[in-house]
Amino acid sequence: MDSESSTTKNSLEVILSPALLPFYDVSGKTVVMIDILRASSSICVAFQHGVRNILPVATPEEARLFRDFDFIIAAERNAVKVDGFDLGNSPFEYENALLRDKSIAFTTTNGTRAIKQARELGAASILIGSFLNISALCTHVRKTQQSVVLLCAGWKNKVNLEDTLFAGAVADRLSDQFDLACDAAKVAQKLYQQSASHLTEEIQQSSHARRFTLLHGNTDDVTYCLQHDTINLVPYMKGEYLICDQAPSASHG
Amino acid sequence: MDSESSTTKNSLEVILSPALLPFYDVSGKTVVMIDILRASSSICVAFQHGVRNILPVATPEEARLFRDFDFIIAAERNAVKVDGFDLGNSPFEYENALLRDKSIAFTTTNGTRAIKQARELGAASILIGSFLNISALCTHVRKTQQSVVLLCAGWKNKVNLEDTLFAGAVADRLSDQFDLACDAAKVAQKLYQQSASHLTEEIQQSSHARRFTLLHGNTDDVTYCLQHDTINLVPYMKGEYLICDQAPSASHG
Repeated sequence: MDSESSTTKNSLEVILSPALLPFYDVSGKTVVMIDILRASSSICVAFQHGVRNILPVATPEEARLFRDFDFIIAAERNAVKVDGFDLGNSPFEYENALLRDKSIAFTTTNGTRAIKQARELGAASILIGSFLNISALCTHVRKTQQSVVLLCAGWKNKVNLEDTLFAGAVADRLSDQFDLACDAAKVAQKLYQQSASHLTEEIQQSSHARRFTLLHGNTDDVTYCLQHDTINLVPYMKGEYLICDQAPSASHG
Repeated sequence: MDSESSTTKNSLEVILSPALLPFYDVSGKTVVMIDILRASSSICVAFQHGVRNILPVATPEEARLFRDFDFIIAAERNAVKVDGFDLGNSPFEYENALLRDKSIAFTTTNGTRAIKQARELGAASILIGSFLNISALCTHVRKTQQSVVLLCAGWKNKVNLEDTLFAGAVADRLSDQFDLACDAAKVAQKLYQQSASHLTEEIQQSSHARRFTLLHGNTDDVTYCLQHDTINLVPYMKGEYLICDQAPSASHG
C-alpha cells in the first residue's frame, strides 16, 4: 500500500524537515544532508581548504570539550557564531590556510542534528551536499547503486526555501536514473524548475536570507553559498567523523 | 529572531505535514484543515447534502461506539472503507439525500487526526478547505481578521502534492491581504503558480492519486475532488463537532 514506485530504478526521496525523518525508511540508503545556509556549504569549503576531518556534535557545550584535544571548535546558533568559539558557520571563515590538516568539532542550529539522526536510523552513507559541490555530489550518487534520500535540514524543523530548492535541483539532475518516489521529491523538482533561471533572487527572498541580512547587514554569505561547482569534493561520514577522500587541489585561504 | 515577518498584515503560514504542527504557534489563529483526497472534500459534500454534524474521531473502534447513539459511522484506512462501516471516504458516498439531518462519526487515515491536533494546540477556529469550496473558504478567511494556518493532512505524515497545491492556491489568492510568513507558504504558492494551468494532470501524478487508481481502478474520486466551487459552504469545528452555518441550497443525492 505504501509503495510509491513500481519501477526497478533506485528511488530518490526528499525529506523537507528533519522532523519528518522518522516517517521514512533510510536504512541502507545514501542520505545527503542539505543545509545550504550555511552548514553544508561551509563544510565543503573547509575540506576544500585541507581540513583533516570534522566531528559533528550536538551542542556548543559538547564542542567546547574538544578544545583540549587540539580541535578547532566551531559553533553557530540562530545564525551567529557562539561566543568563545574559534569559528561560526560562515563559509568565509573556512577559507583559511591555517585550517589545513586540522580537526574541527562543529555544531550548528539545524545541520549537525540532521546528520546525527540519519546515522541513528541506519543510513548506509551520509554525504554533504551544497550548490558549491552539486556536480561532484550528483556524480557520486549516480555511482553508488543505492537509493538516495535528500534530507533538508530546514530551520528549527520548519521547511525552508533554499534547502528545498537544492533538493529539487538534485532531483531534477538525477530524475533520469532515479525514480522520484515521493511527492516531496516532485514538489522540490517542480519548485526548482520554476526557479532555476532566477535562483539567487528566489533564495534572497527566503526567511533565512532575510534573517541573515537583518543580523549581518549584508548578503555576502548567501551569494557565496549559491555559487555552483566551485568545489569538486564530496564530504561523507566515516565513523564519527566527516572526511573527504580527495586531496584539495589548492588552498585559496 | 524567529519572527518571519515585519509587516502589520495578518500572517498566513502553511504546515506541510501534521508532524510539523508542534513547531508552529497556532494559538489564536484560524486553522484550515486540508485533506484534498479525500476527507476535506467529502466533509464539504456531506454538508452540502444536509448532514447535521460530523464528529471527527481518532479510530474506527471509537467511531463504532457511536452507532448505538443513532450516528452514521464512517471510517477509511489506507484509502479504502473499513469493513462494517456505513460509509468510507469517497465524496460520492456523501451525495446522498438519506444523510439529511444525520450525525456522522468519521475517522480517516490523515484528516481527522490533524483536526484533533489543531484543537489541542489552541487554534481559535478550525475550518475545512477543499477545491470544492475554495472561494467560500477564502471569503470566510478574509473576514476573520485573524492570522491563518493552512494545515496539510498529508499521507501518514509525509508531504503530499495535492494538499500542498491546494495550500498554494489559497496562499496565492490571499497574498494581497496576508503576509506569507514562512517559506513553506512560498513553496506552496510557487508550486501552485507553476501548476495552475494543468492542475488535474499534476494531481493525477501524485502518489495518492496513483495509489487510489491502483486500488479502485478509476480516477473518479480524484476528478471529483478537483472541481472548483461546487459548494458555497465552510464547515468548521464547534465544540467536538464539525458543523456548517448555512443551510444547503439543494440536495443533489
